[in-house]
Amino acid sequence: MFDYKLLAALAAVVEQAGFERAAQVLGLSQSAVSQRIKLLEARVGQPVLVRATPPAPTEIGRRLLNHVQQVRLLERDLQGQVPGLDEQALPERLRIAINADSLATWWAAATAEFCAAQQVLMELVVEDQEVGLKRMRAGEVAGCVCAAERPVAGARSLALGAMRYRALASPAFIARHFAAGVSADALVRAPAIVYGPDDQLQHRYLAGFGVTGAFAYHLCPSSEGFVRLAEGGLGWGLVPELQVREELASGRLVDLLPERFIDVPLYWHHWRNGGELLSELTECLRRAAGGALVQVQPGP
Amino acid sequence: MFDYKLLAALAAVVEQAGFERAAQVLGLSQSAVSQRIKLLEARVGQPVLVRATPPAPTEIGRRLLNHVQQVRLLERDLQGQVPGLDEQALPERLRIAINADSLATWWAAATAEFCAAQQVLMELVVEDQEVGLKRMRAGEVAGCVCAAERPVAGARSLALGAMRYRALASPAFIARHFAAGVSADALVRAPAIVYGPDDQLQHRYLAGFGVTGAFAYHLCPSSEGFVRLAEGGLGWGLVPELQVREELASGRLVDLLPERFIDVPLYWHHWRNGGELLSELTECLRRAAGGALVQVQPGP
Repeated sequence: MFDYKLLAALAAVVEQAGFERAAQVLGLSQSAVSQRIKLLEARVGQPVLVRATPPAPTEIGRRLLNHVQQVRLLERDLQGQVPGLDEQALPERLRIAINADSLATWWAAATAEFCAAQQVLMELVVEDQEVGLKRMRAGEVAGCVCAAERPVAGARSLALGAMRYRALASPAFIARHFAAGVSADALVRAPAIVYGPDDQLQHRYLAGFGVTGAFAYHLCPSSEGFVRLAEGGLGWGLVPELQVREELASGRLVDLLPERFIDVPLYWHHWRNGGELLSELTECLRRAAGGALVQVQPGP
Repeated sequence: MFDYKLLAALAAVVEQAGFERAAQVLGLSQSAVSQRIKLLEARVGQPVLVRATPPAPTEIGRRLLNHVQQVRLLERDLQGQVPGLDEQALPERLRIAINADSLATWWAAATAEFCAAQQVLMELVVEDQEVGLKRMRAGEVAGCVCAAERPVAGARSLALGAMRYRALASPAFIARHFAAGVSADALVRAPAIVYGPDDQLQHRYLAGFGVTGAFAYHLCPSSEGFVRLAEGGLGWGLVPELQVREELASGRLVDLLPERFIDVPLYWHHWRNGGELLSELTECLRRAAGGALVQVQPGP
């Protein structure tokens, strides 16, 4: 069998983003960790880590990490039957990539019971869809919530439903920029808010009005910051309905056009052989998403 | 004088994180942008960009960007007096590094009027203190809100006041883990929530109870996700008071020990020769922070 002490050292260096922290977590000296990595590299005959800040796995390193992740999940199943097998016996940590808006809305309520019952700790990584799936493929995460349907090799995807995004702004902003109604002209002139370079929701909304060129926008890579900017009257932007129920009810945020919204489908990606724990989480997400998200029929 | 067409190409490639997007923004072909960068490199006699994804400035590239940023701010002052000088005349975009919790709370209300009056668009970059200042030093941002007081060379720092963090959890979580009171023992066993590897607030809180070793925690790199996890009963964690007024008033979140809180001082870093616009923003932040943040006397 593989020498899992060496593989655990590799996993710790990547997860802790450095040799020093990895050594702390493993209860070893830094030079011992470094030795284990070197020994692992001698065995596989090539580097497993790029020595950068933070250290990054090489292609072969990624494959090893992927394997470690899956072995850990399988170990956990066994531990239910044979307790005391793992000397370290820390609570299980599930690393999951998730889009920022899911984390800001439905995720906590959906997983609270599961985490408490299973004594699971979560390590959440906020990523947009393509990067989330890349991390999945690299074995860096056990699961991923994103808008892409197609699973990576060895994984399954489950349709959770859709997040409904509405174009919102403050009443003062609407009075200033849309007094004469929401038109293509007015939309181009009123500053928008965009989450980041990969956020195309505002572009899609504008395209619905025939606007495809440049428009003025603030950039704000924070779900809560985004809502605060809209509420403060700095711009208009597409916000998950789920996130702003109170703001909509109290009138602090207003829908530009209630009949125009954008539904973004969400999928849960998880390893096919991820063990009991991932299966239970999958079941729990299936149930919770049914209540929290909009259930839509996918297009043809 | 320098050839600012070349410098603008460098700035666009770095700001847009690629040659293709830079070309779009500049209205040039990709090869024209690439040519300008090469010409710039021929003039300075060394590379200004590392051709990675995304392209990163070299040491000398950073100094050039720093210069471009300051020239742009000075240009803006002049434009008030000599309109029409800039052919492109896009609204000014201020790039600012800010800690996630400020963006999730007081920032929007503090800057809304300024942005509307000055027709400024903001590009916000969420960074923890050290990285924010590094970006400042590199000339990638015009200002920075962070917990470090010491300004980088050429910049000033202004004390804004402090964010007050309270250790909060849901009533159900408190009943489950702290029924017998908040003790070192109970704190180590109850899962915490930690924002990321640089978030030491939970560690500091625990140190106040004499706990310095390992403890169980979820990792959640999102301000709003953090609050949702606490509210959902997944863990306890230190949350800015400002962010959860409603949750505290309604009892959805409860203070573990109201007399124990942590005040984190915040500073506004800005270029000393940043022009009128930065000076006005600085004034506006000074006024707004007085109302939103806790005004504390710095220690000796």
